Amino acid sequence: MTIQRGRHFLQTPGPTNIPDRILNAMHRPAIDFASPEFHDLAIACFEDIKAVFQTKSDVFIYTASGHGAWEAALVNILSSGDRVLMPETGRFSLVWRNMTETLGIEVIETPNDWRSAIDPADVTRVLSEDKDHKIKAVLVVHTETATGVTSNIPSIRKAIDDAGHPALLVVDAIASLMTVELPMDKCGVDVVIAASQKGLMLPPGLSFTAVSAKALEVSEKNVMPREYWSWKSRLNSEPYRRFCGTAPEHLIFGLREALDMIKEEGMDAVFARHARIAEAVRKAVGVWVSEGPMEFNALVPEQRANSITCIRMPADTYANDIRTVCRDTFNVSLGGGLATLMGKTFRIGHMGDLNEPMIIGALGGIEATLQVLNVPHGKGGVMAAVDYLADTTTR
Amino acid sequence: MTIQRGRHFLQTPGPTNIPDRILNAMHRPAIDFASPEFHDLAIACFEDIKAVFQTKSDVFIYTASGHGAWEAALVNILSSGDRVLMPETGRFSLVWRNMTETLGIEVIETPNDWRSAIDPADVTRVLSEDKDHKIKAVLVVHTETATGVTSNIPSIRKAIDDAGHPALLVVDAIASLMTVELPMDKCGVDVVIAASQKGLMLPPGLSFTAVSAKALEVSEKNVMPREYWSWKSRLNSEPYRRFCGTAPEHLIFGLREALDMIKEEGMDAVFARHARIAEAVRKAVGVWVSEGPMEFNALVPEQRANSITCIRMPADTYANDIRTVCRDTFNVSLGGGLATLMGKTFRIGHMGDLNEPMIIGALGGIEATLQVLNVPHGKGGVMAAVDYLADTTTR
Amino acid sequence: MTIQRGRHFLQTPGPTNIPDRILNAMHRPAIDFASPEFHDLAIACFEDIKAVFQTKSDVFIYTASGHGAWEAALVNILSSGDRVLMPETGRFSLVWRNMTETLGIEVIETPNDWRSAIDPADVTRVLSEDKDHKIKAVLVVHTETATGVTSNIPSIRKAIDDAGHPALLVVDAIASLMTVELPMDKCGVDVVIAASQKGLMLPPGLSFTAVSAKALEVSEKNVMPREYWSWKSRLNSEPYRRFCGTAPEHLIFGLREALDMIKEEGMDAVFARHARIAEAVRKAVGVWVSEGPMEFNALVPEQRANSITCIRMPADTYANDIRTVCRDTFNVSLGGGLATLMGKTFRIGHMGDLNEPMIIGALGGIEATLQVLNVPHGKGGVMAAVDYLADTTTR
Amino acid sequence: MTIQRGRHFLQTPGPTNIPDRILNAMHRPAIDFASPEFHDLAIACFEDIKAVFQTKSDVFIYTASGHGAWEAALVNILSSGDRVLMPETGRFSLVWRNMTETLGIEVIETPNDWRSAIDPADVTRVLSEDKDHKIKAVLVVHTETATGVTSNIPSIRKAIDDAGHPALLVVDAIASLMTVELPMDKCGVDVVIAASQKGLMLPPGLSFTAVSAKALEVSEKNVMPREYWSWKSRLNSEPYRRFCGTAPEHLIFGLREALDMIKEEGMDAVFARHARIAEAVRKAVGVWVSEGPMEFNALVPEQRANSITCIRMPADTYANDIRTVCRDTFNVSLGGGLATLMGKTFRIGHMGDLNEPMIIGALGGIEATLQVLNVPHGKGGVMAAVDYLADTTTR
Repeated sequence: MTIQRGRHFLQTPGPTNIPDRILNAMHRPAIDFASPEFHDLAIACFEDIKAVFQTKSDVFIYTASGHGAWEAALVNILSSGDRVLMPETGRFSLVWRNMTETLGIEVIETPNDWRSAIDPADVTRVLSEDKDHKIKAVLVVHTETATGVTSNIPSIRKAIDDAGHPALLVVDAIASLMTVELPMDKCGVDVVIAASQKGLMLPPGLSFTAVSAKALEVSEKNVMPREYWSWKSRLNSEPYRRFCGTAPEHLIFGLREALDMIKEEGMDAVFARHARIAEAVRKAVGVWVSEGPMEFNALVPEQRANSITCIRMPADTYANDIRTVCRDTFNVSLGGGLATLMGKTFRIGHMGDLNEPMIIGALGGIEATLQVLNVPHGKGGVMAAVDYLADTTTR
Repeated sequence: MTIQRGRHFLQTPGPTNIPDRILNAMHRPAIDFASPEFHDLAIACFEDIKAVFQTKSDVFIYTASGHGAWEAALVNILSSGDRVLMPETGRFSLVWRNMTETLGIEVIETPNDWRSAIDPADVTRVLSEDKDHKIKAVLVVHTETATGVTSNIPSIRKAIDDAGHPALLVVDAIASLMTVELPMDKCGVDVVIAASQKGLMLPPGLSFTAVSAKALEVSEKNVMPREYWSWKSRLNSEPYRRFCGTAPEHLIFGLREALDMIKEEGMDAVFARHARIAEAVRKAVGVWVSEGPMEFNALVPEQRANSITCIRMPADTYANDIRTVCRDTFNVSLGGGLATLMGKTFRIGHMGDLNEPMIIGALGGIEATLQVLNVPHGKGGVMAAVDYLADTTTR
Repeated sequence: MTIQRGRHFLQTPGPTNIPDRILNAMHRPAIDFASPEFHDLAIACFEDIKAVFQTKSDVFIYTASGHGAWEAALVNILSSGDRVLMPETGRFSLVWRNMTETLGIEVIETPNDWRSAIDPADVTRVLSEDKDHKIKAVLVVHTETATGVTSNIPSIRKAIDDAGHPALLVVDAIASLMTVELPMDKCGVDVVIAASQKGLMLPPGLSFTAVSAKALEVSEKNVMPREYWSWKSRLNSEPYRRFCGTAPEHLIFGLREALDMIKEEGMDAVFARHARIAEAVRKAVGVWVSEGPMEFNALVPEQRANSITCIRMPADTYANDIRTVCRDTFNVSLGGGLATLMGKTFRIGHMGDLNEPMIIGALGGIEATLQVLNVPHGKGGVMAAVDYLADTTTR
Repeated sequence: MTIQRGRHFLQTPGPTNIPDRILNAMHRPAIDFASPEFHDLAIACFEDIKAVFQTKSDVFIYTASGHGAWEAALVNILSSGDRVLMPETGRFSLVWRNMTETLGIEVIETPNDWRSAIDPADVTRVLSEDKDHKIKAVLVVHTETATGVTSNIPSIRKAIDDAGHPALLVVDAIASLMTVELPMDKCGVDVVIAASQKGLMLPPGLSFTAVSAKALEVSEKNVMPREYWSWKSRLNSEPYRRFCGTAPEHLIFGLREALDMIKEEGMDAVFARHARIAEAVRKAVGVWVSEGPMEFNALVPEQRANSITCIRMPADTYANDIRTVCRDTFNVSLGGGLATLMGKTFRIGHMGDLNEPMIIGALGGIEATLQVLNVPHGKGGVMAAVDYLADTTTR
């Protein structure tokens, strides 16, 4: 086998590139969990992370994957026998739905073609029919990692309000946080779920629930058995000990650095950077799909995510080969198709610690792969990305 | 404030010293979670970690604190309304009991003075009285972190067998794993619970349940709502994906290195090293307590843990000052008293990546602290430790 | 100022990209310089580095920059009053010449346009005229970092032989080592000079002289005052102590890793990788220079280096702006023009730890810069590089 | 072989313990040597390092070992045929003398028993006899690494002045810098020589000459052939390029961090910490030598160094065994005897990044070793160190 040299380009939709600053911040001895040093660090992280969620409410930090935070959101506000609305978006709404049902909660799902955003009209319709308010919550995936589609949260908020329904609004922002605006308080979101390994630029291992006063109140009375995930129990701990057991110190060291980096760059600049990098990707993909069988998976341009671009093939022929060749021959890792999209799509992750030459290099590796595999495509995608980046520089 | 220089000595009972090899193994970019590289790494870790638990059964790896693994063990084998026996050992049996009750499980507790091991006769007595086998499990803390007492697992196994009772035996080995023998399969333990940040030398963030076939069978039929913790769900995933969501890659990189280091040193050598270092600590403490008010918290010498030594004071006067001065003036961090032992004890952690000069330095810092604070004590503890280490070298 | 995110692309002609493996190998405590561990490490490095120079002779490792190794070569084989031939190649032959003269050595220089390789006929001519063999050595720069031109060492060897002249052949391979073949023994080179921060992928701080038996013999009798640089003194030390003082342990830890990486990949594969990456750069530059005022600095295609491409401008207008904008706006660092080429050239370094997406990203950043600055150029350089890389993959 | 675990204690007299902060500062990619970032970093280091030498004069930073800085000092102010006075102190004055003679400089040496400081009367005597001022410089080793003796620089300055002699005063502070006061300007020292791997807490690889105006003036006219070491050439470079070739960036990153750490702690605090740690070592050694054959090598208590303690044995029996057993059995590395002291001494390094438990642990390992090897010694050295540290804490 040929030994590969140089830095591998990680363009999967999570985990993402971890800045050296964060890796260095984590490269240190453990410290006394009960020391003033850790106390102050934890308190500051719990406070400063609120800005990332654009909220004044409490953010709970879990030693867990994003799936753990899904479960945390569910078991704090819902109990077995409750009913919820979960609009379909793709593989992740599907897996979350399965978890919800496994926990004994009844799910109403509105269907989706895995190529479009949630239709707010569906939400209004289902809630309007729920006269006696049996539906306790509407749970939506903001950016569906499997499809590259971002739904519009304000419009869903409006849909709930239009139906005059009291259901809580719970948003999975795992694949969108820090890549596109999601002002929790302003949008009236009750729970935002996120994880460390995407826009936050950290290794996987932490996840989060940001929780409105209304959701906290619901959780106070909720009877679902729980302790590790329990907001109530964590709020009853000393503030710096809100981890249910020993804190994941090294990830907290990394989180501290990530929060500092985000503050330095500025939230708006982070969003703008993601929008620009994403548009560069879309320029390249736009050229590729202009000839031959490839398409954007997301049908509506405005719904295409700033964190992931999903590219669709008509048949099973190419998608997996593209990933393998691109990874093994051109040092660029891509995401594959998931669930019903397996073998039919590949995905370019473009979130987190990313800049111009990184995305150009990745797109170049992909375009070279298309050539090597003789995938019919419009030629010059990389150039279109370069042109766009040249045209939009503001420095 | 005086700036401190040199390496701080972390002698808390977890987190513990992380070897540079492990920190370096974790200092690398994230990788594609779906790549052959991660696939092979995960499969190997799931396989190789069995040796650490001395079992052939499955070990489940959680992105969670040790408390998370507590909850995992509970919700997989028990449901609300079930009854269990949880012999008291100290603060950690207490907190675990509270969690168990919060989950709706009825707990029978046998009392303990927080200075002694579990009495197997108590176990036999309670189980013998449970004629219709309503008690589903006996849950014991192997080494109680708050008291420095290690209970005898084989004798508890025998106590259950003597009562002819089918209850599962669940052992919290969080503070004992890799510091003292616990041959799961040979001892007939059904579930062993552990975490990364103690004998395994890793940062906090991972926890484990090793599960016997009998416990797995029980879990298949258990109705407690759960998904993140579910053994069944994890077994249904592809083997390398048994993390319920994105794997905590960096902790897995570290785990791989830890497993290699343990294999290189050899399990028996690791246990012998812990026993010798612990005895050196006990030699020092034995001198200190020979005059004045301090005592070993663990009353019975054979029950003193190889991972933590807990030292008791008659009054609230010294214990907290000792920790503060030792940390701020002599660069050695100790554990404090917990729950009812708060202000009455301090604790020396001595597990994980530790050698002779490290423990001598720590003991020296403590003895200097006793002098600075004028705590009455027998003089020469450090020398006793040095003498013992000189007498017992085998190299 | 806009905060930049993501990894900066370092495309200067040294220092170059340092692999994480090497940085990690250097991230460790110092060790006892007199321990068996360091002894074995040093001995192995002195032995294994011979392969990199393709020689069986001794290689001397200096704690010094490449300029230090220049001086080492000079003072070991030459004394004040000696005469040498130093064919001009560019800024680095010029600086080396100045050093040589400062040391009291008389230099005969054959002129060069800084766009071409050394003409072997010049060497033959000068040596043929030196009937009484006053010229002690011919000192040549293999790849001139300032011009991107590589001279042909076998042809220079032949030129010396054709003149029947006994002069030593000394080659500065600082910018060529590991980027193009230079089989020292086979080519009959007497001294090869190199440094750590280019093809060897290490931080700056080490430099090397590989020395033939003939050169060693000359040095034995050479009277130039010297100790730090002295081959003789170093040979008289214990083999592991051949550093004249405390060894630069961390750079040696890094060197060990670099030698392992080179062995894993294979020398031929390393050369082939450099040739392919360099050709991709030349394809891109070839498009850019096809329209407008830019040119390859190296006039003869076969003389263009596999480690650096130097691009020439007619006037002072663009070259410095290109570097600034490319660095500050597109996260790609380039080399500038040196000496008489200042303001007239910029240079792309492409040596060391480099792969396809890295070079594509760098070229993309440069092409975007050309657009931003309205530098007239043929469009599509990046695509040409992508096409070439797609056409030449062998995996 | 038994695998060792835990952190090894490096108590050699250089290299010394490198703080994690410094290792982390060095764990980063190389940067463009011609970038504003490196420019500013270099300028600041050249400026800020003056404080370490307590001077307003220029400090030259060499990519070189301490031996390199020795040669730098010699070749800048002396030429072949010149005469100097080099009072003997031990192995390092010997090696330096040999280097000086190799460079063609005539050395007058005043003899020493390798257990005492330089006698200022010797200096006055030799200089007074040198009526026509043929002696150009007095070169002294401040703390002799081989013997653990520190000479008194102000008294040597006075001795030169008493003789009314214009010779330059050159001080090798390699083993003393930052461990004991050496106010260059106030003391009237013309050249101070130092290296990175001792009190500066860095890896080996950098060395320094701090140079008075008088010495600079001498160097201007000095004819010794040199370029790499030349102060004049370096002063003629752009300020940030005063490295003669590519700067050793990673060591400079480390130096920046070291200078920050020293500034944070404060020079006086650094000196006081060294004095206190050293006295703790002397308390321990004082007990050991109170019975049996061991002695302090330094005969006069006031001359015992704050950076190294050298312990002497009457015969060849123990010294090497002590080092081997201490290293392999107790994880503490010590220095051995050098030159005529080989087999007769061992040395404890105690400089740089060191605190109380670190030195106690090291002393404990040594005392255990004495016991294992049955070396007759007074018992309780470690306790004496602990007592002293407890008595002298000021926090």
